[in-house]
Amino acid sequence: MTIGDVKALCFDVFGTVVDWRTSIAREAAAAFAGRGIERDWYAFADAWRARYQPAMEAVRSGRRPWTRLDALHRENLLEVLREFAIEGLSAAALDDLNRAWHRLDPWPDVVPGLTRLKRRFVLAPLSNGDVAIMIALARRAGLPWDAILGAEVARAYKPQPEAYLRSAALLDLAPAACMMVAAHNGDLAAAGALGFRTAYVNRPTEHGPSQSTDLRPEGDYDAVAASFTELADKLGC
Amino acid sequence: MTIGDVKALCFDVFGTVVDWRTSIAREAAAAFAGRGIERDWYAFADAWRARYQPAMEAVRSGRRPWTRLDALHRENLLEVLREFAIEGLSAAALDDLNRAWHRLDPWPDVVPGLTRLKRRFVLAPLSNGDVAIMIALARRAGLPWDAILGAEVARAYKPQPEAYLRSAALLDLAPAACMMVAAHNGDLAAAGALGFRTAYVNRPTEHGPSQSTDLRPEGDYDAVAASFTELADKLGC
Repeated sequence: MTIGDVKALCFDVFGTVVDWRTSIAREAAAAFAGRGIERDWYAFADAWRARYQPAMEAVRSGRRPWTRLDALHRENLLEVLREFAIEGLSAAALDDLNRAWHRLDPWPDVVPGLTRLKRRFVLAPLSNGDVAIMIALARRAGLPWDAILGAEVARAYKPQPEAYLRSAALLDLAPAACMMVAAHNGDLAAAGALGFRTAYVNRPTEHGPSQSTDLRPEGDYDAVAASFTELADKLGC
Repeated sequence: MTIGDVKALCFDVFGTVVDWRTSIAREAAAAFAGRGIERDWYAFADAWRARYQPAMEAVRSGRRPWTRLDALHRENLLEVLREFAIEGLSAAALDDLNRAWHRLDPWPDVVPGLTRLKRRFVLAPLSNGDVAIMIALARRAGLPWDAILGAEVARAYKPQPEAYLRSAALLDLAPAACMMVAAHNGDLAAAGALGFRTAYVNRPTEHGPSQSTDLRPEGDYDAVAASFTELADKLGC
């Protein structure tokens, strides 16, 4: 198969489609502004996100049964609040703050890029985020997905093979007819090893101004772009 | 919960959203016109559809393992062609004719109705059709789904409870926060027994001019409408 045989584009979401760091910092600032609590909310976002991979690893390793990301986020939030010496939030306030992950803004090139890419390709998130998170992000930002795939439908967190393979199977496509689009070399390496086509989209400020990882493509990818609109150019859309 | 607590509408598709009978007859007529083969293509559509429930029942009963609807349609097509004394089609021609189920037209009220309903509710098909069939129908007709749920993600064909319950779980909603929308009393009875809200949309010509079943609501449903636009009226959209 060649790149011309690609029928569907599967997208990483946190970092690739949405700017989680700026959005979480904004949501936390807004949540605590009325309570007179001031902290470095970018550091708060980073601390929350730092607990993301370890929490999923407990599921991947089998140390705990399948648990949705929303629940992992909620557990991690309690730890981060402790770390930042914030207390006294009601369960409802915690739930609302946890849903900050449902209110993340896309990078500015995303909606114009996806709109062009949709003319030619089936588009679906292949994220570790839950279906409900993906639906909320899409409705809020107008992301024109054709379906919601990824970890929850597979009950396996990336980079476990089942997350990618079950998504391709639900599209009724061979892996080689699917292109994984991500800003993370590890995600693309895992997808590529299973036969997916790969596209790296650079997001050098996902982790803020001093980002040290995923600053450039580190694999032999089928496409490399600085934005979703440039990806649309490169894929002839 | 009251009807005001409904967050998501889950739709039956074949018959409720799309007019499969007219569409299959049109597709079959077009496929055979160039070969000089003439038959009653409405009867052909009815014969193909008549094999739908028995084929799924073999899966539901456990007599065969999970098998996608696309594959069941393909097996059934071979039997129907034999019944109609049609032979000599290549595998590629059979595959293309089988994909007639990916090219079904919605009833005329569907896109305007869904567009209005989407403002307030999450919308997803909860069909026995595969994810790939649902994506193809949506892209062709512009059906504004937020996600694709239903039998294939649950690996269970309606009316098995798992098809409904897994769909609600993927939405992170209790059954009572989901409303099943269907033109079939049996589908609504199964969903309602699990706690779903129910809406009956009348499609009295799904099976043609002499339809004898599902001509009227036979249960105590939360809403009854003659079209998706009337359903939007009744749900305040």
